Amino acid sequence: MTSLPGEPPARFRLEAVDAASGARAGTLLTRHGPVQTPVFMPVGTQATVKTLEPRDLTDLGADILLVNTYHLMLRPGAKAIREFGGVHAFMGWDRAVLSDSGGFQVLSLASLRKIREEGVTFRSHLDGSAHELSPESAIEIQTLLGVDVMMSFDECLQFPATEEEAALSMERTVRWARRGLAHRAQLAQGGESVPALFGIVQGGTYPHLRARCAEALREEPFEGFSLGGLWVGEPAPTSHALVAGDTALLPEDKPRYLMGVGTPLDLLAAVAHGVDMFDCVLPTRNARKGTVLTSRGRLVVKNAAYAKDTRPLDPDCDCYACQRFSRAYIRHLFAAGEILGMRLASLHAVTFMVKTMRQARAAIVEGRYDTFRNAFEERYTSGEGLVPALRESA
Amino acid sequence: MTSLPGEPPARFRLEAVDAASGARAGTLLTRHGPVQTPVFMPVGTQATVKTLEPRDLTDLGADILLVNTYHLMLRPGAKAIREFGGVHAFMGWDRAVLSDSGGFQVLSLASLRKIREEGVTFRSHLDGSAHELSPESAIEIQTLLGVDVMMSFDECLQFPATEEEAALSMERTVRWARRGLAHRAQLAQGGESVPALFGIVQGGTYPHLRARCAEALREEPFEGFSLGGLWVGEPAPTSHALVAGDTALLPEDKPRYLMGVGTPLDLLAAVAHGVDMFDCVLPTRNARKGTVLTSRGRLVVKNAAYAKDTRPLDPDCDCYACQRFSRAYIRHLFAAGEILGMRLASLHAVTFMVKTMRQARAAIVEGRYDTFRNAFEERYTSGEGLVPALRESA
Repeated sequence: MTSLPGEPPARFRLEAVDAASGARAGTLLTRHGPVQTPVFMPVGTQATVKTLEPRDLTDLGADILLVNTYHLMLRPGAKAIREFGGVHAFMGWDRAVLSDSGGFQVLSLASLRKIREEGVTFRSHLDGSAHELSPESAIEIQTLLGVDVMMSFDECLQFPATEEEAALSMERTVRWARRGLAHRAQLAQGGESVPALFGIVQGGTYPHLRARCAEALREEPFEGFSLGGLWVGEPAPTSHALVAGDTALLPEDKPRYLMGVGTPLDLLAAVAHGVDMFDCVLPTRNARKGTVLTSRGRLVVKNAAYAKDTRPLDPDCDCYACQRFSRAYIRHLFAAGEILGMRLASLHAVTFMVKTMRQARAAIVEGRYDTFRNAFEERYTSGEGLVPALRESA
Repeated sequence: MTSLPGEPPARFRLEAVDAASGARAGTLLTRHGPVQTPVFMPVGTQATVKTLEPRDLTDLGADILLVNTYHLMLRPGAKAIREFGGVHAFMGWDRAVLSDSGGFQVLSLASLRKIREEGVTFRSHLDGSAHELSPESAIEIQTLLGVDVMMSFDECLQFPATEEEAALSMERTVRWARRGLAHRAQLAQGGESVPALFGIVQGGTYPHLRARCAEALREEPFEGFSLGGLWVGEPAPTSHALVAGDTALLPEDKPRYLMGVGTPLDLLAAVAHGVDMFDCVLPTRNARKGTVLTSRGRLVVKNAAYAKDTRPLDPDCDCYACQRFSRAYIRHLFAAGEILGMRLASLHAVTFMVKTMRQARAAIVEGRYDTFRNAFEERYTSGEGLVPALRESA
């Protein structure tokens, strides 16, 4: 038995579908408030969206953020967070929180990892201590964190992978997803307040494997579905075709989350394929290095060409960084090694992504998504008012 | 002629003197609003109070901050700031700004410095480029910055110094102060909007030299006076006696600024000696390293002993960091190397210093300064709720 007793921990309400594009607007109702989709979720890896405060995030309209199970289980530890009343109380954030399962980080950060059917044993990248993550323990840890939405523990495939590797990995991911569901049901039977749970579509770049995965998962009582293993090195047209293939097979009445993607144009394309939720560390990671996305494209604010530029980072943005400071001042802060530069750039970067999805949502509701997307793309690729970047700093 | 034509650039209004202690409450009226004294001025070395935004500073009640002439003349340059309409516009701060003269940094940071009667030549610590600062150029640079209150260019004496060295240095400081006044008058005659100017009392730890300096400076039309060269290594009782000696000789109707000092208890002692203005980088520098001052004493928040402490940094503080977050969370941020930890600790640190001076002011106005100071000191030295520090991290 994998269904839950009582009220589901989250419900999705599909509110509009743009007829021309297929883009969706909805609301994910969580225990910590509604999340309007499509949505960009700022990434709070270690229970903080780097350089930002919870009040910054509520001010800019974020109603959900993401935390990383791998990082938090190692430091400060899931039980420590539970003792605090959960991750919301710990980090002072009272809106929704989604956690990843730790699978991706275990494969990319931990050392001496060993993958078996039972689960993964690994050593912490922090101090070498031994840990394990299994489909069951990932559910337990995320439940201890007290998040609103959790992910199934999945096996993240390396890229490129052979069809056989991809098939084996995908089949294991489905078995692990079912084990996670069963374990959650057991925790709930035991009186535990459990988060919503998403299944993750894997299968690498093989459409028929991803299809088999989606068809298997959609039969299970997940509250939503994630698209995993994409944007890992495959060509862009492949990525978008795989997204379209996945969403076509997923139930209409559940949210779809494209994990770890991507540029604003990628997001708008995926929205047109019916994706509802996104996260990506790149906007904030780049911002801390002095590059921000704006409505006119990528602005390398640390570039000396902006030393006398009195304009804001983005003339179309209403964030505090854009309302109050010039490119020249923010450039000065980066040149002087001042933390405030990273903070202001991050504030703009998160605002831009969150607001872009808000605007997409409004356009979907009003049935003009393609018009919105075309206008956005034209402006975004114009580079108007920007100094041509001397080098790629992605 | 060293007086200014027209309205003075700042005026001081002495509003109350606590009968028992001699502590003063006043208001310095600047072109960017009133500054209520006694006051702690947050330090914005490079045109930013590290990790904080202007809105943080106005929210916590700061009505003046300090910037460093030496740093800003080198980067981004005084002319660049002038082109922006001055330092207020550049950094997005619309309340008062005070600048130091650069003298202290030239002696402590620059390399290959050469001191002559004319001024100081030196090489930048950033790129080795050659620069000069003189009594006249220091006034010009601070005027270009567009600050509200500037400092005379003074010679900062090393400690210890012989009486002869101290005498020569003090006499030069007086000559330089007069040259600065004359140059400011000339700029004003030329139509320049000039800042208020303070003279700086030097003379090392020799009371009669400091007295001669104060007696010479008080005859000149400065808008205020600074106490320089203190807290540089001399014993604490000596420092306090020198402060008392200086203020006794300075005019009642002008503000007195004790430069670069110090702990809250030092400030409260100096207030009792009639000092009105303070700045110090230590509260924020220590905060960035994980140690904050609180109403109960010094709290080393990065200490593992706070890993499960649900209390705020300071139970008596109403800053956002104390209202929203636990010691445990802030400790986690420091352990995880998260910038938000530095920011929250800095926010509290500045709030604590600014509010302590606000409370001192209220006590002076109500004629209960000694009672306030005793209660503050008793609480501050109680260490209540704090883990004993394992080592000094000053």
